[in-house]
Amino acid sequence: MDFQILSELPQIYRVIIKVIFILVSAKIAINIGVVSIDRVFAMRFKRVPVDESRMRTLAGLLKSVMRYLVYFIAVVVMLETLGLKTSSILAAAGIGGLAVGFGAQSLVKDVISGFFIIFEDYFQIGDYVETAGVSGIVEEMGFRTTKLRDFGGQLHIIPNGEITRVTNHSRGHLRATVNVRVSYEEDLDRVLKVLEEVAEEVRQKRDDIVEGPTVLGVSDFGPSEAVITVWAKTLPMQQWSVERELRKAIKERFDKEGIEIPYPRMVVLDNKGKEGKDC
Amino acid sequence: MDFQILSELPQIYRVIIKVIFILVSAKIAINIGVVSIDRVFAMRFKRVPVDESRMRTLAGLLKSVMRYLVYFIAVVVMLETLGLKTSSILAAAGIGGLAVGFGAQSLVKDVISGFFIIFEDYFQIGDYVETAGVSGIVEEMGFRTTKLRDFGGQLHIIPNGEITRVTNHSRGHLRATVNVRVSYEEDLDRVLKVLEEVAEEVRQKRDDIVEGPTVLGVSDFGPSEAVITVWAKTLPMQQWSVERELRKAIKERFDKEGIEIPYPRMVVLDNKGKEGKDC
Amino acid sequence: MDFQILSELPQIYRVIIKVIFILVSAKIAINIGVVSIDRVFAMRFKRVPVDESRMRTLAGLLKSVMRYLVYFIAVVVMLETLGLKTSSILAAAGIGGLAVGFGAQSLVKDVISGFFIIFEDYFQIGDYVETAGVSGIVEEMGFRTTKLRDFGGQLHIIPNGEITRVTNHSRGHLRATVNVRVSYEEDLDRVLKVLEEVAEEVRQKRDDIVEGPTVLGVSDFGPSEAVITVWAKTLPMQQWSVERELRKAIKERFDKEGIEIPYPRMVVLDNKGKEGKDC
Amino acid sequence: MDFQILSELPQIYRVIIKVIFILVSAKIAINIGVVSIDRVFAMRFKRVPVDESRMRTLAGLLKSVMRYLVYFIAVVVMLETLGLKTSSILAAAGIGGLAVGFGAQSLVKDVISGFFIIFEDYFQIGDYVETAGVSGIVEEMGFRTTKLRDFGGQLHIIPNGEITRVTNHSRGHLRATVNVRVSYEEDLDRVLKVLEEVAEEVRQKRDDIVEGPTVLGVSDFGPSEAVITVWAKTLPMQQWSVERELRKAIKERFDKEGIEIPYPRMVVLDNKGKEGKDC
Amino acid sequence: MDFQILSELPQIYRVIIKVIFILVSAKIAINIGVVSIDRVFAMRFKRVPVDESRMRTLAGLLKSVMRYLVYFIAVVVMLETLGLKTSSILAAAGIGGLAVGFGAQSLVKDVISGFFIIFEDYFQIGDYVETAGVSGIVEEMGFRTTKLRDFGGQLHIIPNGEITRVTNHSRGHLRATVNVRVSYEEDLDRVLKVLEEVAEEVRQKRDDIVEGPTVLGVSDFGPSEAVITVWAKTLPMQQWSVERELRKAIKERFDKEGIEIPYPRMVVLDNKGKEGKDC
Amino acid sequence: MDFQILSELPQIYRVIIKVIFILVSAKIAINIGVVSIDRVFAMRFKRVPVDESRMRTLAGLLKSVMRYLVYFIAVVVMLETLGLKTSSILAAAGIGGLAVGFGAQSLVKDVISGFFIIFEDYFQIGDYVETAGVSGIVEEMGFRTTKLRDFGGQLHIIPNGEITRVTNHSRGHLRATVNVRVSYEEDLDRVLKVLEEVAEEVRQKRDDIVEGPTVLGVSDFGPSEAVITVWAKTLPMQQWSVERELRKAIKERFDKEGIEIPYPRMVVLDNKGKEGKDC
Amino acid sequence: MDFQILSELPQIYRVIIKVIFILVSAKIAINIGVVSIDRVFAMRFKRVPVDESRMRTLAGLLKSVMRYLVYFIAVVVMLETLGLKTSSILAAAGIGGLAVGFGAQSLVKDVISGFFIIFEDYFQIGDYVETAGVSGIVEEMGFRTTKLRDFGGQLHIIPNGEITRVTNHSRGHLRATVNVRVSYEEDLDRVLKVLEEVAEEVRQKRDDIVEGPTVLGVSDFGPSEAVITVWAKTLPMQQWSVERELRKAIKERFDKEGIEIPYPRMVVLDNKGKEGKDC
Repeated sequence: MDFQILSELPQIYRVIIKVIFILVSAKIAINIGVVSIDRVFAMRFKRVPVDESRMRTLAGLLKSVMRYLVYFIAVVVMLETLGLKTSSILAAAGIGGLAVGFGAQSLVKDVISGFFIIFEDYFQIGDYVETAGVSGIVEEMGFRTTKLRDFGGQLHIIPNGEITRVTNHSRGHLRATVNVRVSYEEDLDRVLKVLEEVAEEVRQKRDDIVEGPTVLGVSDFGPSEAVITVWAKTLPMQQWSVERELRKAIKERFDKEGIEIPYPRMVVLDNKGKEGKDC
Repeated sequence: MDFQILSELPQIYRVIIKVIFILVSAKIAINIGVVSIDRVFAMRFKRVPVDESRMRTLAGLLKSVMRYLVYFIAVVVMLETLGLKTSSILAAAGIGGLAVGFGAQSLVKDVISGFFIIFEDYFQIGDYVETAGVSGIVEEMGFRTTKLRDFGGQLHIIPNGEITRVTNHSRGHLRATVNVRVSYEEDLDRVLKVLEEVAEEVRQKRDDIVEGPTVLGVSDFGPSEAVITVWAKTLPMQQWSVERELRKAIKERFDKEGIEIPYPRMVVLDNKGKEGKDC
Repeated sequence: MDFQILSELPQIYRVIIKVIFILVSAKIAINIGVVSIDRVFAMRFKRVPVDESRMRTLAGLLKSVMRYLVYFIAVVVMLETLGLKTSSILAAAGIGGLAVGFGAQSLVKDVISGFFIIFEDYFQIGDYVETAGVSGIVEEMGFRTTKLRDFGGQLHIIPNGEITRVTNHSRGHLRATVNVRVSYEEDLDRVLKVLEEVAEEVRQKRDDIVEGPTVLGVSDFGPSEAVITVWAKTLPMQQWSVERELRKAIKERFDKEGIEIPYPRMVVLDNKGKEGKDC
Repeated sequence: MDFQILSELPQIYRVIIKVIFILVSAKIAINIGVVSIDRVFAMRFKRVPVDESRMRTLAGLLKSVMRYLVYFIAVVVMLETLGLKTSSILAAAGIGGLAVGFGAQSLVKDVISGFFIIFEDYFQIGDYVETAGVSGIVEEMGFRTTKLRDFGGQLHIIPNGEITRVTNHSRGHLRATVNVRVSYEEDLDRVLKVLEEVAEEVRQKRDDIVEGPTVLGVSDFGPSEAVITVWAKTLPMQQWSVERELRKAIKERFDKEGIEIPYPRMVVLDNKGKEGKDC
Repeated sequence: MDFQILSELPQIYRVIIKVIFILVSAKIAINIGVVSIDRVFAMRFKRVPVDESRMRTLAGLLKSVMRYLVYFIAVVVMLETLGLKTSSILAAAGIGGLAVGFGAQSLVKDVISGFFIIFEDYFQIGDYVETAGVSGIVEEMGFRTTKLRDFGGQLHIIPNGEITRVTNHSRGHLRATVNVRVSYEEDLDRVLKVLEEVAEEVRQKRDDIVEGPTVLGVSDFGPSEAVITVWAKTLPMQQWSVERELRKAIKERFDKEGIEIPYPRMVVLDNKGKEGKDC
Repeated sequence: MDFQILSELPQIYRVIIKVIFILVSAKIAINIGVVSIDRVFAMRFKRVPVDESRMRTLAGLLKSVMRYLVYFIAVVVMLETLGLKTSSILAAAGIGGLAVGFGAQSLVKDVISGFFIIFEDYFQIGDYVETAGVSGIVEEMGFRTTKLRDFGGQLHIIPNGEITRVTNHSRGHLRATVNVRVSYEEDLDRVLKVLEEVAEEVRQKRDDIVEGPTVLGVSDFGPSEAVITVWAKTLPMQQWSVERELRKAIKERFDKEGIEIPYPRMVVLDNKGKEGKDC
Repeated sequence: MDFQILSELPQIYRVIIKVIFILVSAKIAINIGVVSIDRVFAMRFKRVPVDESRMRTLAGLLKSVMRYLVYFIAVVVMLETLGLKTSSILAAAGIGGLAVGFGAQSLVKDVISGFFIIFEDYFQIGDYVETAGVSGIVEEMGFRTTKLRDFGGQLHIIPNGEITRVTNHSRGHLRATVNVRVSYEEDLDRVLKVLEEVAEEVRQKRDDIVEGPTVLGVSDFGPSEAVITVWAKTLPMQQWSVERELRKAIKERFDKEGIEIPYPRMVVLDNKGKEGKDC
């Protein structure tokens, strides 16, 4: 079916044969395109459950775009076959295509990012994650966006291309941290011992603590107090509850032991030789 | 209608036939363009109600641009057919087209983003959303911009391309959160019990509370107070009203029970052995 | 007028005919350009009143640029017709054109943005708007810049391409918001009742209040005070005046009723058993 | 002088004629370039006074660059005429040209911006403007930079491409604003009356006040004071002087009337039933 | 097997031979591609232990993409061989390819960065590093992402392309720094001597201190205190523990020696000649 | 020496002649390049004194690069002359060249910026300037970087491309500004008179004051004080010294006159009818 | 060895000769590439000492890449020689190459920056520098990264492309600056004299002070104190030690002289006519 072997035919037949060949090729290209789009969409369904009616709309849209593109190419090829120079048409289409291509670039980026989020298992539905400045429980993972619901109940919709660094709070144990302030007048050794006992108590009571609570020691000298840090490893998402439990237990024990949580302090002097107020 | 089969005709006729063919093709291209523009605009009307007169102006504008583009291509093809080299004209037009294309890039991005906002149902008219640094009730969703009206009454006009991360407050229940400060001298167990009772009361009174109010426990040790958090799940946009109700109920009950909301505290020392002011 | 039909003529005549044809085409192109520029400028005049002499200068400038561009193309086409390879000239011109095109890109963006600002009715002359980090009354809308005058009297000149998000304060009613602080010792119910009465009074007195003033309730627990919010819907730009009126009325009524606006409070303790200063 | 008509001549003569033609064309192109550069520079001189010797240096530089460019093109065209393929030379030159072009891009942007600053009359020499993070009196407007001198005497040199948003303080009247703090114990009506009188006095004394001073009313409730705002429209750059005058007059009148400008206040409580210090 | 030597054959056979040759070449290209992909993946396995099943999925994906690309090229070459102009197909594919290429650009950047992180030995599994705004222990180094687990237990997933500046805490000794505040009334020489002794003590007790602790001297004059800095070189990750030890030892020794850590101080004056409070 | 005139010679001689011609051209191109590089470097030496040995190294480097580039082009042209298609070689070299070109872009930008810094006389060696976030005395102006030494003695090395906005402190007189705080109890007129006298005194004593010191008036109402501004125009870099002189003179005169610089003030209230502390 | 002279040979031999020629050229190109890579690497070794085994790995990698590139080009040239159109292969390779080129762009930038850091002598191993937001002693200068160790012992690894502005603390003398606060009640002249004496003392004791310490005078009026600045020029990196020495000496001398470093001051008023506390 080489066109050179047509050279014995009268020109008018050769043109007709060529046009038929182009039309048939276009038809085949469209069919391959339709099948490919269907296959890609079918493939995606297996991995992430998605809204099927929306998928069908999108597949339909993609097929329309593909069809018009093939028509356009077929027309240009036909015009060229008829001997017309089409470089100006191609130049115009090319610039338009570039503009659309640049505009659609973030769409491509979203889809590629979405693939890697699933492929590299950044997070799964139900994980508590922090990304792109917001945090929340993953509620839906789409081919273009991810939806998080945060503690306030707000729904965050994030294009996948915006998701770069991800902090996942649901992979492994988390740490509950409580900073206890005690005044400089307290006996540090006694405070540390009391805290150890409280830690032991809380450990007994709760079975979502994986390790600790451990009393780390004097972690800072504040303006009015020494700061002692207590921490514990807990099951994911239990850290806040453990922290609240620890705080209540420490407060109650301190009340019993007479250890104060210090208020801000200030030494007030007057101007007479710094002797204090003798009033 | 192949131009090679014209080779038997005298040159002057061949040129005339070619020019007629180009003009007819241009006419057809313009007609297809006009119909396509009309169809795309008709299609959009179904989804989002838009200002029709503005749409007509825009469609008219697009048709003019398309028409001049086809004229330009037809002229270049004719010049080429006449044997003139047009690469310099194309180069000049190409660079101009690139400059315009880059400038129009954000326009394309706006329209593509607008399509996905509607397609992926980011929000609907009437939703309270937060995006691109502003927040408000969605008042109009256009093909290029979205309009939000915020609580102050200001109208925010945002190009769709600027809308990436969206926080939608109207999808699902929202959380009302009240932080209650009590002094370290209070008996924590009594305070927690009182708060539970107030929560129960408010739950009875209001039917826009979906879950809770729950008293979470000691969520922080402040400089002069322990902080106790109360929260509730409410119908969308009712969270602020529930918070105000809770605050009033807690204040009134605390007054009755003699539990104080503590003012900032400071321990004032003088310089003599830290014994306090014996004046 | 096909150049191939000239092949019977001696070469020297063919060249002359071609050159004349190119010159005539260039002349026609220039005339079309001049008419197009004039039409575009005439069209713009109808929508936005602009400084006419400046427009004329600009149109003149554009025509000069267009004329030199056509000359350049005509010269290149002639050289090609004479058989010279001009790819190096085109490459040099192309790179220069790209550099200029990239530099002029923001100009194109400004004009396209300006068109959409007018077309989508972002704001009109006299509106109070906030955009690109400044705010003020719109004083002039040009094809490339917008001029705002702010309350201080300064004139802000903003390229249209910098105007993306716009907050328009002159579309619909605005909200006047007054936060009233009362001490924790006050009887909240009495305060709320008094505020309701003041709101009623102010409503009577002013006819630029569209809705309210409404007393919302306890909107926050401050360190030394409960915060009660009062708000009202007003005609555009009247919100500040209504706020001042409300503040004055509340202050005067509070004075009468003996309700205090609390100063910051602090509890001062000494170190002896927290008994207070027994001096 | 078509090269095809040379085909009867022996090859060696044809080459010589072609080379002569190229050299003559290059000479003409250089002359046109020199004249154009001179004309553009002469044109600029009329609008903005610039340092002439620097202009001459720059024009010389541009002419050198233009001359070498024409030489390069002529050499490439000659090599092509001699039958050598020059695509590799052009590719190398093109990439180098692109790199230089991108580097010079900000230069083009500066010059275009500079043109629009003058054309759209953003500011004139002597205006007090604020742009690109600095502010000062415009001292020099160049084709590539603008020079501002700020109040401290420092000279800011800003490339025109960095000048986007401009705030011009010398177009129209400016506003002098004085915020007066009075304690909550003062009688607001009396304070407002006194301020009105002071405003009247200052209005009499100064003739650079265009409108006001007007006493706006209670513009804020501060922690220890009510804030009353007074403002006036003044001639450009006189606003600071008017503010100082107003402040002095208000202070003096308040001293006479016994109205105090309040110091920060704090209520100090002790822990015994909030009864105050009975010492 | 040159196609020109086929010219004696009838056209129909020549076409068949050409198509067979193209198909065979495509097959060979695919095989080379498969082998190359397998080799690259095998090579990577040696350096960093990675999840093998994921690698296999990725290799499969890459092979599919490579296979379809070769098919596409083969079809285009065949169409060209048959005499069809394919420039419009190539232009369409090229623009699509560019869009995908730009979208995939960050993928390429991630992989290249990942290579250099391993090659230049930025960090190893188990190191404590700080990069891209987060910090933690390196848990996994992938070909596209790195995973850090921070002290709170959260897992940070960072694309390698985001990792530019890296701060590695596990290369060499780290410094423990303790700032001790003493009041201006203390004798500086005595304080310095006491601190030297404490430093000596701590040095004895711990063998993870490599150098010091050294008492540097008076490093700042604070508002209520002189600040003395003590530092020590420790084994990696032991610095916090050493700091806590030092703080406890200093506090205990200061208690013994009667050296106070000062509370914030303030001199309170009344208005009578600054004489102090004579009450 | 046209290649067409060689057509009578046997092919083998023609090839040899062509290759010789290419080699000779390459040699000439290299020589021109070497001379040009030397001339550009010689030219720069006149304006700014630079480290000569470094210049020689750089010129040598540039010559090497230029030489290899010419070799590469010559080889490609030869291969083309021999009838080989070199588009794939050119494509590979082009992409590599683009990557290098983009990488080197900032180098080009640095050199162009450096040229304009010198040409437009932004600053000279010895000037005190502020640019790109650092400030200091200009110590060296290079073709690619500028070196500043700041007051702390640190040497800042800044690529010229980072230098956009420049603030030059050594062009014209600078302003010394002293803000004097006086308590609200002082008699403003007396304070202003005293300050005028101090200003007069300082003016007498120093001859590096060009204008003033002028007492501007009440420039702000602070929380505990009225602020009065005094300023003076001084020779460049003398402003700090003048400010210190003014401060010392004002302090001494205030001590004599009994005018106090006020400490922060606070009104302390108790809760009993705001009567003050009657203890 | 021109291919045109082969035209007398049968086609099959011509093809074989061409293929052999291409293979030989490829071999030569590879050899030249290998030698060039080796030479570039050898050259670098002289300037900066680098890890040799890593260099060998990298050279091996570069050679592999170069080899595969030459193979690819050779195959394409062969296919073209056989009469196949390869534009689609080149387009595919070109787009891939562009994507890789853009991704590798930062690599090129790093290497070029690294070259200039060494060439312009920004810093040397052992210098204390500040760049890209971190600071430390330079420990290693690589062809792609620089390694700094900061005072805390952390190792910062910075790609050279991130190093733009550099602040080098090891070039020339640095300045030690101590701000001394004295209360407004002190006699300024006496304080200045005492400070001069302390400065003299310290100058005697230390030989790493190059100039000063100089007492500059009253550099600021703080809320509770006058600030006097003392500075000195020291050998690099000795400034902190000199500052500590100065601080200790000043503190000791002030103790002796009875000059106080003032605590923050506040004037406390009650509400009764501002008379002070008469308790």
